[in-house]
Amino acid sequence: MKLLRETLAAIAPQSQEYRDKAAAHIDDLTMPRRALGRLLELAEDLAGMTRSLQLPVARKNIVLFAGDHGVVAQGVTLQPQEVTRQMIYNFIAGGAGINALAANARAAVTVVDIGVAGDLSDLAAAGKIVNAKIAPGTADFCCGPAMTRDQAVQALETGMAIAAELAPETDVFGTGEMGIGNTTPSSAIIAVLTGMTDSTDLSALVDRGAGLPSSQLPVKIAAIRRGIELNHPDPADGIDVLAKVGGFEIGGIAGLILGAAAQRRPVVVDGFISTAGALIAKALCPAAVDYMICAHGSMERGHRFMLEYLGKKPLLDLNMRLGEGTGAALAMNLLDAAAAVMTRMATFGSAGVTDRGL
Amino acid sequence: MKLLRETLAAIAPQSQEYRDKAAAHIDDLTMPRRALGRLLELAEDLAGMTRSLQLPVARKNIVLFAGDHGVVAQGVTLQPQEVTRQMIYNFIAGGAGINALAANARAAVTVVDIGVAGDLSDLAAAGKIVNAKIAPGTADFCCGPAMTRDQAVQALETGMAIAAELAPETDVFGTGEMGIGNTTPSSAIIAVLTGMTDSTDLSALVDRGAGLPSSQLPVKIAAIRRGIELNHPDPADGIDVLAKVGGFEIGGIAGLILGAAAQRRPVVVDGFISTAGALIAKALCPAAVDYMICAHGSMERGHRFMLEYLGKKPLLDLNMRLGEGTGAALAMNLLDAAAAVMTRMATFGSAGVTDRGL
Repeated sequence: MKLLRETLAAIAPQSQEYRDKAAAHIDDLTMPRRALGRLLELAEDLAGMTRSLQLPVARKNIVLFAGDHGVVAQGVTLQPQEVTRQMIYNFIAGGAGINALAANARAAVTVVDIGVAGDLSDLAAAGKIVNAKIAPGTADFCCGPAMTRDQAVQALETGMAIAAELAPETDVFGTGEMGIGNTTPSSAIIAVLTGMTDSTDLSALVDRGAGLPSSQLPVKIAAIRRGIELNHPDPADGIDVLAKVGGFEIGGIAGLILGAAAQRRPVVVDGFISTAGALIAKALCPAAVDYMICAHGSMERGHRFMLEYLGKKPLLDLNMRLGEGTGAALAMNLLDAAAAVMTRMATFGSAGVTDRGL
Repeated sequence: MKLLRETLAAIAPQSQEYRDKAAAHIDDLTMPRRALGRLLELAEDLAGMTRSLQLPVARKNIVLFAGDHGVVAQGVTLQPQEVTRQMIYNFIAGGAGINALAANARAAVTVVDIGVAGDLSDLAAAGKIVNAKIAPGTADFCCGPAMTRDQAVQALETGMAIAAELAPETDVFGTGEMGIGNTTPSSAIIAVLTGMTDSTDLSALVDRGAGLPSSQLPVKIAAIRRGIELNHPDPADGIDVLAKVGGFEIGGIAGLILGAAAQRRPVVVDGFISTAGALIAKALCPAAVDYMICAHGSMERGHRFMLEYLGKKPLLDLNMRLGEGTGAALAMNLLDAAAAVMTRMATFGSAGVTDRGL
């Protein structure tokens, strides 16, 4: 609990002073007033987060937490659980979507086994993944809590420790995940936090994840209802929500976000599952929202409720639903672009351009 | 007319064969079916354009056409015409928005004086800009056609010649422009091509460009109405529309797009003014639309009518309205991302990942 307590205590809101300085600089750049729109809002955010007008964003690391889920026993997924483990080998071999898009973003990828059911000891021994396995998958939340409260704290602290360790060599964090079944706990988390827990609400919220046939959606909805009714997660207690209906990788993501915020580092939040982690982070420390950049709007229909809960508008909207951190990787170029605007553009005075409402 | 005729004759639609090959490859990549959404549609488009599954997109050139507009005499802009010339010095010094964002995209910027009112002979003599000046600005279309038909053809052929010259060293083109007053001819072009020419239509279409006060919008709308009523541009004749209510830089952009299409090169179309050029290109050769990638949705409200006319959905939507090619530069990273997905990702078989609806 010590790391968790210290991390939460270290989180301060964005610097209004640096936001204002950035806004003043932007107003003097050679373009019509605010003509780069949301790119300039992003620049102000980055200035407020980093307390710098240079917007340090060059060194990027996408931390991909992998975990399995006991609730797959309820038939909430199309894919077998084994795919979680198979995909980790794919990440390490460099053949997954996140590898392609992280390379394009010049971002490192750190793979963390925080609770995969399968054996990954060879990769851990070779130093290719971070071994932080809490248990071989969560328990089925239809039969009891997904994890103990201690395990939830451990998941959070795992993410926090990784953020602290990587911070000296990282300007921007990204979140990613892998875990067959993890749209189910993610849906449960947004349902609990917004009180959207009856059948009608859940029908509006729960979607097909990685391709569950529509005919099986009622099974997924029923499992989520059962998990909530059985375990009574307390929406006022983020750790309780994570423990009862969450997942290890979701806790790791929440911890990474909180750790990034404590280090005053921007964190680019990927899609549906990553945003579930962001909700847990907000529940534990609302000021952490100041450091979150929501990368893209997921095709998973519950994502918009999550974004509303955070009060965020995503940067991209490209009908993606892959996870792994792919949306975060794609959005990272916009951070580079915002930094280029702030550091490379001339001012009206220096360029000799007439400023008349320009 | 010879280059124009030959260029139009060389334009063929995208290759369905390569689109199909790309789609088949995508279905075999280690991710849930089509889980990267519009990035995969972009990959198919690029395969269809380039007749390659490697998606060559590395070498990028944003061609920025600059021209002035006689219609500024009607009071349709806030900025003095001199700003066009001032901004060209800013482009060459590297201090404009396009410089920052092109550098971020690793794209070259080619500045073309196709009709600036001011003297740029020093930059032309130094080889820093392409001197293709047709006239020192168009005529005021409220008093007669903006240019002669011969000049319109010259503008188009200027763009075509540049596309042909740059093609051997360019994988992807981008469009950009600078010209105080150029939202006015751009609005006139979409009005003519869609028949939205009465006052009500124009009120829905015409917007504030680079910050015209709302109180002066009626002046801009009246100028556009007068230009259309006086000159009777023929919506069935793209050259006539360009000549009567267009601009030199808009013609250059249309020519560049047609030239890129003839060379089977993708062309990333920037915002409102660039898309007006794309409309002229479509009017001259509908198959050219197959090579256009619309970068972003502009804040200028008429842009959505242009996108509808082209049948395109932009990649980005970031409330931008700067022009210069900035949106095109920003979108170019998504082309790199699409190429990375196609060339770097593993297939289910090669990665040993179970394919069950994944």
